[in-house]
Amino acid sequence: MKYPTGSKKQEKKYIEYSHRGMTLENDINITNEQYRNKDVAYIYKKPTPITISKVEFDLKKEPIIKEGFYKTPSTTDYNGLYKGKYIDFEAKETKNNSFPLANIHFHQITHLQNIARHHGIAFLIVRFVKEGKTFLLEEKYLTDFLNKEKRKSIPLCYFEQNGFIIKEGWNPRIDYLDIINKIYFKGEEL
Amino acid sequence: MKYPTGSKKQEKKYIEYSHRGMTLENDINITNEQYRNKDVAYIYKKPTPITISKVEFDLKKEPIIKEGFYKTPSTTDYNGLYKGKYIDFEAKETKNNSFPLANIHFHQITHLQNIARHHGIAFLIVRFVKEGKTFLLEEKYLTDFLNKEKRKSIPLCYFEQNGFIIKEGWNPRIDYLDIINKIYFKGEEL
Repeated sequence: MKYPTGSKKQEKKYIEYSHRGMTLENDINITNEQYRNKDVAYIYKKPTPITISKVEFDLKKEPIIKEGFYKTPSTTDYNGLYKGKYIDFEAKETKNNSFPLANIHFHQITHLQNIARHHGIAFLIVRFVKEGKTFLLEEKYLTDFLNKEKRKSIPLCYFEQNGFIIKEGWNPRIDYLDIINKIYFKGEEL
Repeated sequence: MKYPTGSKKQEKKYIEYSHRGMTLENDINITNEQYRNKDVAYIYKKPTPITISKVEFDLKKEPIIKEGFYKTPSTTDYNGLYKGKYIDFEAKETKNNSFPLANIHFHQITHLQNIARHHGIAFLIVRFVKEGKTFLLEEKYLTDFLNKEKRKSIPLCYFEQNGFIIKEGWNPRIDYLDIINKIYFKGEEL
């Protein structure tokens, strides 16, 4: 794994990052846009599922939603296409030094397992905010943990041992496909 | 192409169908659920994209969306995974005997073209309501039409010549993957 700086500098870097106020979701959305602009991959965030219960119609204007409720998502937040392969992942931030499994819905885990079984590329992206580290963890290691461990959260060291740290930069912002490229395509160029 | 009955019976069949009040969207949602239940494919409808402008928070209850607006979708409505391949399509009904291109957003067409170029499976499902016929048209024939024709709608005969009619039944309700199977997997069993 690559760390650009030592632990003290990392601490400082984290502070700068937090000042920029960039969330993981923002970083992924920017990255996906950068991938699209370079014609590298077509990966999108799914809209938040909402049950709409009241809509106001006005012939002169666009309809306005007047009442709605958030629904529990049945799939993950992100999916798309890279080098002919189906890509599917969920992304979460945590302020703890262990990733609470309660942060992912049970059927999102089942969904990732279904995808992997059908030869899609399924993974988690988890950012440890305090440590300023973002990891990619393949579905098989998530499932392994769930099968073997009784703990309700995945410790940082499990990500360090079984995951891949995602490099941060400007373009692409967080280059998670670089890791996918190395795992699934042996780093070949398109 | 297979027609279960002659034209007069088809007319009657259409009336029965319309009485059941099943829209194409309903049929596709049911079909996708049936595919999932049989562990055949994991294809979902994306939630409708909404910009939320007011949310009411109440500590005791779930948050309630008090104002929101429909956004123009940047991708198609359906995507997912089948036999390791990325599947992406848009579905539309028309009451005309020609499919108006105004029914699909320009960037949805671009999206389908991006998907096909990156080796995903991209297509349209179009139902001609009066004729009671539902077609699958591959992206390449859509693009061909757009490149060669100046007409603003695709006539039914173009679908009959270049598309595939989708069989209707109970389970699966509209078996569009049967066509994908024949085109991309030469009809092999999993």
